[in-house]
Amino acid sequence: MGSVPHVLVLGAGFGGLYAVRGLARAPMRVTVVDRRNHHLFSPLLYQVATAALAAPDIATPIRSILARQANASVLLAEVTGIDPAARQVTTDAGVLDYDFLIVATGSTHSYFGHDAWAPFAPGLKDVEDAFEVRSRILLAFERAEAVADDAARREWLTFVVVGGGPTGVELAGAIGEIAQRTLARNFRRFDPRDTRVLLVDGSDRVLPAFPPESSRDAARLLTAKGVEIVLGARATGVDARGVELDGGRRIAARTVLWAAGVAMSPLARGLGVPLDRQGRVLVAPDLSVPGHPEVFVVGDLAAVEQKGEWLPGVAQPAIQEGRFAALNVARLARDEATMPFRYKDLGTMATIGRSAAVAIVFGHRFSGFPAWLLWLFIHITWLIGYRNRLVVLLEWAWAYVTWGRGARVILDRKAWPPTD
Amino acid sequence: MGSVPHVLVLGAGFGGLYAVRGLARAPMRVTVVDRRNHHLFSPLLYQVATAALAAPDIATPIRSILARQANASVLLAEVTGIDPAARQVTTDAGVLDYDFLIVATGSTHSYFGHDAWAPFAPGLKDVEDAFEVRSRILLAFERAEAVADDAARREWLTFVVVGGGPTGVELAGAIGEIAQRTLARNFRRFDPRDTRVLLVDGSDRVLPAFPPESSRDAARLLTAKGVEIVLGARATGVDARGVELDGGRRIAARTVLWAAGVAMSPLARGLGVPLDRQGRVLVAPDLSVPGHPEVFVVGDLAAVEQKGEWLPGVAQPAIQEGRFAALNVARLARDEATMPFRYKDLGTMATIGRSAAVAIVFGHRFSGFPAWLLWLFIHITWLIGYRNRLVVLLEWAWAYVTWGRGARVILDRKAWPPTD
Repeated sequence: MGSVPHVLVLGAGFGGLYAVRGLARAPMRVTVVDRRNHHLFSPLLYQVATAALAAPDIATPIRSILARQANASVLLAEVTGIDPAARQVTTDAGVLDYDFLIVATGSTHSYFGHDAWAPFAPGLKDVEDAFEVRSRILLAFERAEAVADDAARREWLTFVVVGGGPTGVELAGAIGEIAQRTLARNFRRFDPRDTRVLLVDGSDRVLPAFPPESSRDAARLLTAKGVEIVLGARATGVDARGVELDGGRRIAARTVLWAAGVAMSPLARGLGVPLDRQGRVLVAPDLSVPGHPEVFVVGDLAAVEQKGEWLPGVAQPAIQEGRFAALNVARLARDEATMPFRYKDLGTMATIGRSAAVAIVFGHRFSGFPAWLLWLFIHITWLIGYRNRLVVLLEWAWAYVTWGRGARVILDRKAWPPTD
Repeated sequence: MGSVPHVLVLGAGFGGLYAVRGLARAPMRVTVVDRRNHHLFSPLLYQVATAALAAPDIATPIRSILARQANASVLLAEVTGIDPAARQVTTDAGVLDYDFLIVATGSTHSYFGHDAWAPFAPGLKDVEDAFEVRSRILLAFERAEAVADDAARREWLTFVVVGGGPTGVELAGAIGEIAQRTLARNFRRFDPRDTRVLLVDGSDRVLPAFPPESSRDAARLLTAKGVEIVLGARATGVDARGVELDGGRRIAARTVLWAAGVAMSPLARGLGVPLDRQGRVLVAPDLSVPGHPEVFVVGDLAAVEQKGEWLPGVAQPAIQEGRFAALNVARLARDEATMPFRYKDLGTMATIGRSAAVAIVFGHRFSGFPAWLLWLFIHITWLIGYRNRLVVLLEWAWAYVTWGRGARVILDRKAWPPTD
């Protein structure tokens, strides 16, 4: 085993996982290191947060995905540093040597320097985040039932989602549906349909990365689900009672969710190469790092330009980059020259609750029900693991017919809200 | 609304939930208080703990179960005391008055006075417990892959379940299967089939509450799944490295699970009535409390004698007692005399992993595959919520064909094991 090259892959998100799979037939040892035991199907994480899916539906053990790939092993550990000169990576489970390195450690959410807002406005990056968001949404309705005062109840029934990208749009749409339909007849002191859901974004439209027509469609579909859209407004303060917007406007709300801002994995700095303003690694056309042809960066953490635009931090670029880095590693091992990465734009989409979505597929624009059917088809076929597909399809079918949500489990109700 | 009697039900386990449902057509207001938002189908909790099911499969929101019962409302709150003289219950969400009270606050696990063992040997009572047990089992295999030393690996691959009742038998059987089948090909440094699973009990047989023939069958089925049974042995010490048994024997094991001992809800003491040695309320034949005909106790917390034997703390007695207490409350409200409770013994069962179980149904004894089919049929039909039934059936069918377990999600790997 020691005679074949050792490829170390950091992170088992879309980028890392597809890199490992891309090396399945290469005469190499591959080790993938992740601090979690599961690969997360993150495009559906908001559905766990909004009680539509259970966590295991979208979290598959990395080991079981790679069980039959004999040249791959999995290490559950946290990477603490990279030393490209020594070709070593340090983890909390020891030091690892490598011949080739693929860095796919991604990003998390950021509060634009206001980390004090974090306890009041959870973001959505991992399973624990989803449980936290789910518990807060459900607990807010519980508190609304428990309080006697109407003004206090209004605060518990006001939800603010900060950030109008796909995650924010999906969260706001889902909360709108929970209020309008799922919780019907569940409470005795109020009608859940009186819930207010506000989606706040600093730009002049939702889904700013989509074409303006899609933004218009999304805004119309959100409004139909009872979501109020607040544009051109940035959060200047967040606390347990609401959000302060620039211009001094304040929204009194007990539940604030964060879907704005990304912070790159701090491991990028350890590479000692130029980063862009967001902290992404400015990779070479073959996805390698300047000065280190044996080191590649893929996924959210890589700044990759195609046709004059930067690729967004979503699943498709990560998957294609992961596969491509594997290809280039295999070429280097055979003493062949690497190839420049070419992104194949398959499209992009966002759902706005049940039966509604916006999508751009192969350059064609869809909205409403057709876009939602597309979304459904693509996500079901794409889910890793046949079991997950069946279970998720069944849960969605069930939810579609009943408007129910099967995963309304509040964990650890002590944690939130703070008693005040 | 104020003119009809107010029935307060404490706890939405099997006893409390069936009491509320039993009052659906009574001209009364019913309030059920629970500190959790969900009713837990606890007979399948060990399947969440052993990664076979997701938490939402067995946890249904109390509100959604009771959504269509117009005379019932749900309060998410922790009960802190009962004042039978004032007919009041105090909670962390305020004081509640009642005309009739049904106490169904159940039990939790106990460490026989050794609470210091709790961090080293988690029990299994709620969803968080199940997540904790699941994470520990899965993390033990991860650590076994990470350590270089064989002796250390053996400790990580040794699992001890303390307590040979149904929960202990079910846990041990499931861990045996995970090791023998589910994790095949998942690790590179060891064969999961080398895992040791020990089931420890102080009595002279497993399932001591079952007939001796069932105990014998269960022992045989467990042994076939690779479980070692250690009888006549009580735990005298538990720490991060293993279990000490009386007689001085020590088992070196990094994972110890607790399935022994129950501790009754401390609310029983507030009733000011005689309790048995275990802390259960010695109820009158109509399930009311001596001196307080308007107060009933049902489920695990009630000491109920039938034909010279105490009913066990499992679901069937709780369900029947809950329904019966509702009936007696309705009779009292109509100024009729209460009736004495009569238990209808439907049987009892325990599974030992896939395709194997022991069961006593209407006095007939079953074991092996027929018992398991019975178990499957009864638990599927009995699960609350049609959606749960479909999803669970699909998950079981999938697991049956593949030996896979769909819920292998480790949460918060920092918490356990302690780095040492």
